[in-house]
Amino acid sequence: MIDLTKVRAETPACEEVLHFNNAGAALMPDPVVVRQLAHIHREAEIGGYEAAREAAEEIDGVYRSIARLLNAAPEEIALMENATAAWNAAFFAFDFQPGDRLLTGEAEYASNYLNYLKLARSKGLVVEAIPSTSEGELSIPALEAACAKPGVKLIAVTHVPTNGGLVNPAEEIGRVARSHGIPFLLDACQSAGQINLDVEKLGCDLLSVTGRKYLRGPRGSGFLYVRRGFLDQVEPPVLDLRAAKWVTPDRYELRPDAKRFENWEYNYAAVLGLGVAVDYALAIGLPEIEARVCTLATGLRERLAALPGVTVQDIGSRRCGICVFQAEGIEASDIRERLSAQGINTSVTDPNSTLLDATKRRLPDLLRASVHYYNSEDELDRFAAAVKEMVTA
Amino acid sequence: MIDLTKVRAETPACEEVLHFNNAGAALMPDPVVVRQLAHIHREAEIGGYEAAREAAEEIDGVYRSIARLLNAAPEEIALMENATAAWNAAFFAFDFQPGDRLLTGEAEYASNYLNYLKLARSKGLVVEAIPSTSEGELSIPALEAACAKPGVKLIAVTHVPTNGGLVNPAEEIGRVARSHGIPFLLDACQSAGQINLDVEKLGCDLLSVTGRKYLRGPRGSGFLYVRRGFLDQVEPPVLDLRAAKWVTPDRYELRPDAKRFENWEYNYAAVLGLGVAVDYALAIGLPEIEARVCTLATGLRERLAALPGVTVQDIGSRRCGICVFQAEGIEASDIRERLSAQGINTSVTDPNSTLLDATKRRLPDLLRASVHYYNSEDELDRFAAAVKEMVTA
Repeated sequence: MIDLTKVRAETPACEEVLHFNNAGAALMPDPVVVRQLAHIHREAEIGGYEAAREAAEEIDGVYRSIARLLNAAPEEIALMENATAAWNAAFFAFDFQPGDRLLTGEAEYASNYLNYLKLARSKGLVVEAIPSTSEGELSIPALEAACAKPGVKLIAVTHVPTNGGLVNPAEEIGRVARSHGIPFLLDACQSAGQINLDVEKLGCDLLSVTGRKYLRGPRGSGFLYVRRGFLDQVEPPVLDLRAAKWVTPDRYELRPDAKRFENWEYNYAAVLGLGVAVDYALAIGLPEIEARVCTLATGLRERLAALPGVTVQDIGSRRCGICVFQAEGIEASDIRERLSAQGINTSVTDPNSTLLDATKRRLPDLLRASVHYYNSEDELDRFAAAVKEMVTA
Repeated sequence: MIDLTKVRAETPACEEVLHFNNAGAALMPDPVVVRQLAHIHREAEIGGYEAAREAAEEIDGVYRSIARLLNAAPEEIALMENATAAWNAAFFAFDFQPGDRLLTGEAEYASNYLNYLKLARSKGLVVEAIPSTSEGELSIPALEAACAKPGVKLIAVTHVPTNGGLVNPAEEIGRVARSHGIPFLLDACQSAGQINLDVEKLGCDLLSVTGRKYLRGPRGSGFLYVRRGFLDQVEPPVLDLRAAKWVTPDRYELRPDAKRFENWEYNYAAVLGLGVAVDYALAIGLPEIEARVCTLATGLRERLAALPGVTVQDIGSRRCGICVFQAEGIEASDIRERLSAQGINTSVTDPNSTLLDATKRRLPDLLRASVHYYNSEDELDRFAAAVKEMVTA
């Protein structure tokens, strides 16, 4: 049971704003803020390298915390600047050849898909979006059928898309991938922190995460998981002093762990803040967080669906903390601005961010309200009342 | 004339540490620290996206400030997480073909050279290190000769190497590159902030910079300059929502400016801090900074050279604020630690970080003492006295 009074007290902004933009960037709990501020102070006091040296053990601990979050080993974790950087490092590590097939989902995120299209054009990569079931999630039978044909180089799927509450069946995808010996890259940018992730159960070889969303960490933080046994099957797309050692004028040696995907330089305040955020989530418990987030989101969808002219557009048999809807006669951007003026934070998801799904379902811009465990039932009521006032005005 | 009392008062750490690790990470002036802290507070108060939205105009201003620093246009600037990220984005934007020649210098930085070797292996890139003159800098006649032969795809040179005071003749390299129509990527990671950079005079097409070094900005900040006329001659190696728009299921459009090299997500506290750091440097004046840094470094080298058993290893007819030396009978790492115990910050540069130059000159680990304009003559004396005590003990 989550102590709502405590977590809200540790998130003072809860008293100032109604934050339903957790899938954008969640509110950081106090300890995450304090840790960042303290490190920046320390950098100013003794120097940037010197402060990092002083925090070396704690920085090592960040890897251990992330590993614990994912049921992975610290050697399987690479710190990255954000989920996109992490995902790119993973995706471009594959040596795609003309005709190689890439399987993805219909709700794939634009940033990922742009890179599929880039390689389709430059390398002849064949991109195949596996159809969704009538419920909305990636169809496992369709994936099985696609994998039965040769040439699949990679399965790359967004766990929770940017445009709704859908949770793709990552574990089942992982099982199919393993049974066919196909690498599996899971974009967990929007699921980490709200869904209990276990890389063993997920069966993924690579997994990318950001700090700023449901993990409640700093902006400009993230990480990549690379399964130990998979490390030597790909090569980092870029190298630097952290990743490799220049041993003779024409030879280098990659380091043995996932840090070969890292860059030498970091914003260490963000790294340390991320570590605190992960520990904070672990202390509460991911199963507990997941249960509460889903309960709140279900409550929000029910409230919204009851409003005249409001259409909730979440799909999938399993849904998470993200709720999207449209309201007859009001643009999503108008709703966002009018809510913002009342101290209610949300965001707008536009069709170009998930073009395949948005085209298929003919979606307009949608208002995205994403809840977290620190949100309250009272906030659900206030939010629904605010939307009701707009749609019935 | 730089007001030393003022700049030291605005850098309170000057009273606590003797900071000669400016080529590692310089001490941030107060306004840079304050700006970061304020933004993180604001993120905690109203949300991460909301705080960035509120700071949108100031963020635009960061591009203008950087453009002013380089004598470029804001549309030619891409914000990056650090200089390595910036350099990688530039280098991997070229579509290297087997047999393409890449020209670089002997003092090239390991992180860059690792990527040359990676593409030598995977793409048949031919890497040629242009010999240095007897003074130590990249030889312009040798570069001319290399450019006279066909197949040069790119000239990529480190302006100020990591292992000493050398300043490579970037303007002359730029002239050669332009006269042959060869793209020129300048790694200005260590020169920006201590040397007055003007991209028109430098004649470079691409230039990468970090915030944390001589610009006195936050760790985990940096930028890339891409000359306007050059933008369409390369394609960003990775794409994301910031860089391109997904317009139809199989087509995307790159944005028209240098932001096509950017990632959507940033640590905005660091971005805003970087902007303040650039403004701070501009207010003092880069020519003034450059003059003082060089004067101090010359003074430091003279003091060190006068000590028994100490060999200053800086090369080049033009030198900057970085001084490197070895001391008979004491490992550089020992010197660093013993200095550190006295509150003196330095770093160690090892042969693997600039392997070609270090091999040629048979360099051991060197102690690197890098001065900035806020350092004082008194600190030069104290530093020399501390080293003297070690070498004469």
